Amino acid sequence: MAEPLRIALAGLGTVGAGVIRLVEANAALIARRAGRPIEIVAISARDRSKRRSVDITPYTWEDDMVILGERADVDVVVELVGGSDGSAPACARTTIEAGKALVTANKAMIAHHGLELASKAEAAKVPLKFEAAVAGGIPVIKGLREGAAANEFERVYGILNGTCNYILSTMEDTGRDFADVLSEAQAKGYAEADPAFDIEGTDAAHKLSILAAIAFGTAVDFRSVETTGITRILAADIAQARTLGYVIRLIGMAETDTNGDGVERLFQRVQPHLVPFDHPLAHVDGATNAVVAEGNFSGRLLFQWRGRR
Amino acid sequence: MAEPLRIALAGLGTVGAGVIRLVEANAALIARRAGRPIEIVAISARDRSKRRSVDITPYTWEDDMVILGERADVDVVVELVGGSDGSAPACARTTIEAGKALVTANKAMIAHHGLELASKAEAAKVPLKFEAAVAGGIPVIKGLREGAAANEFERVYGILNGTCNYILSTMEDTGRDFADVLSEAQAKGYAEADPAFDIEGTDAAHKLSILAAIAFGTAVDFRSVETTGITRILAADIAQARTLGYVIRLIGMAETDTNGDGVERLFQRVQPHLVPFDHPLAHVDGATNAVVAEGNFSGRLLFQWRGRR
Repeated sequence: MAEPLRIALAGLGTVGAGVIRLVEANAALIARRAGRPIEIVAISARDRSKRRSVDITPYTWEDDMVILGERADVDVVVELVGGSDGSAPACARTTIEAGKALVTANKAMIAHHGLELASKAEAAKVPLKFEAAVAGGIPVIKGLREGAAANEFERVYGILNGTCNYILSTMEDTGRDFADVLSEAQAKGYAEADPAFDIEGTDAAHKLSILAAIAFGTAVDFRSVETTGITRILAADIAQARTLGYVIRLIGMAETDTNGDGVERLFQRVQPHLVPFDHPLAHVDGATNAVVAEGNFSGRLLFQWRGRR
Repeated sequence: MAEPLRIALAGLGTVGAGVIRLVEANAALIARRAGRPIEIVAISARDRSKRRSVDITPYTWEDDMVILGERADVDVVVELVGGSDGSAPACARTTIEAGKALVTANKAMIAHHGLELASKAEAAKVPLKFEAAVAGGIPVIKGLREGAAANEFERVYGILNGTCNYILSTMEDTGRDFADVLSEAQAKGYAEADPAFDIEGTDAAHKLSILAAIAFGTAVDFRSVETTGITRILAADIAQARTLGYVIRLIGMAETDTNGDGVERLFQRVQPHLVPFDHPLAHVDGATNAVVAEGNFSGRLLFQWRGRR
């Protein structure tokens, strides 16, 4: 068996702890599929003493996550801290500058600094992997980019925020109001205490900008996403849509259009949409994410997975 | 730009003609994504003079498809002839023995001879690619194998035959009988003149055996698939299922189970199933294919695409 690939983990929240459990539970499988074992050699997070669902004592602790990539015994840094600014991008930059590969699940960071990080990674000739930033552990991005690589995609759209979808589909099933369902979602852990990031559509816009960049081969352009959230949707809107044969879903959509003048532009929008009953997205309920890609040869592809939000 | 990858096409039916159109229409995109152009240098099919939807005059014709792989100007043979025996496996063997890569969309051949061909390809150190055998052009297999490579899959199941799904969902929507809907499907081109291969479940069983091998890392074992088709489903069965909250779908399912004795075995079945309304597969209508994979960390992933059948 080849030498192990040595990874450092920055961030030990739900996802970081999940990575530790996954690497421990599926070690043999991963080694077989990857051709070499994967070993966690160092970890870092904001608070060392916090109670966690996994035992972190087997791993070397670093107080400063920014320097994980500079450790001689680290091949890859996995950044799971989150946040568009602060220690996450600092850690990403140091890692790339140290000539190490970076794996990140940080959609806010990629939406805001993806272009800069991609340029740095290209210059340093190191891999920058952000599959997990759109769909944790899910092969959507890889599928789009490689499995359907011979296709020209014309439109990519989907349900990109599980919190919003949980709220809308619960309003639909129960006839209850937005505020009422939001409180319940917060109590159940499907929505954050401060829900603005989700319900205003920002999280969906981050993911859309990353998906669009991959589908169309363009640079990540989060700032041009026109975003409307779901806070003004009334129970009455949903009831009325239903009588007309529609459900309401928060849809992120990216498409290229010439608008009649021959110049191709990328349009990116996140907004509540009327989705007809016979469209597959009308049946995506609860805290689920789904992406539809329409290619010029593949037709309509749909990927669906259980989202954390 | 690097040297072109030179391919030979064996078989010029719907899929083969589609490959020619795709390579012509998306040439620039493919070259950019693959890092080198793809060029069709030679073609072969049973009947040279048959009327086709694409112009084949720009390509060198070979009467004998079996020797395509022996041409010095060919790097890869794409086998789209179909059939578990005859010229397809002969062409596959010659190609591999000539040290050339083989790409195939032939699910019957992979179901019956996949193990033998995989051993030959491994010995000859040449790639054998059969993504297209389960879901033409669709990233299901790639997604399973690479995008979710760290997952242990416990169960893989889905709607693997578009003809059967078209018939069942049309019976459901219209209340009409099996024989009646089958005739219509044949008239519309959704079912073959000899429909047995589809409606008896054989085609779904071929695909299931390939999916299972990839999901579980086992050898293709088509012979052990227990198969029941849809020919005995009555309109009354469908109506009764609906009153109980179910639809009927032909489901191919593969799972590993110890059956209580600690020895893990692979179980593969194709049979009509009751699918509850709230399961995503209950909303897969028409000539559509869908696969659900349940992993120990990813949860339930669903891929859905428009099938030719």
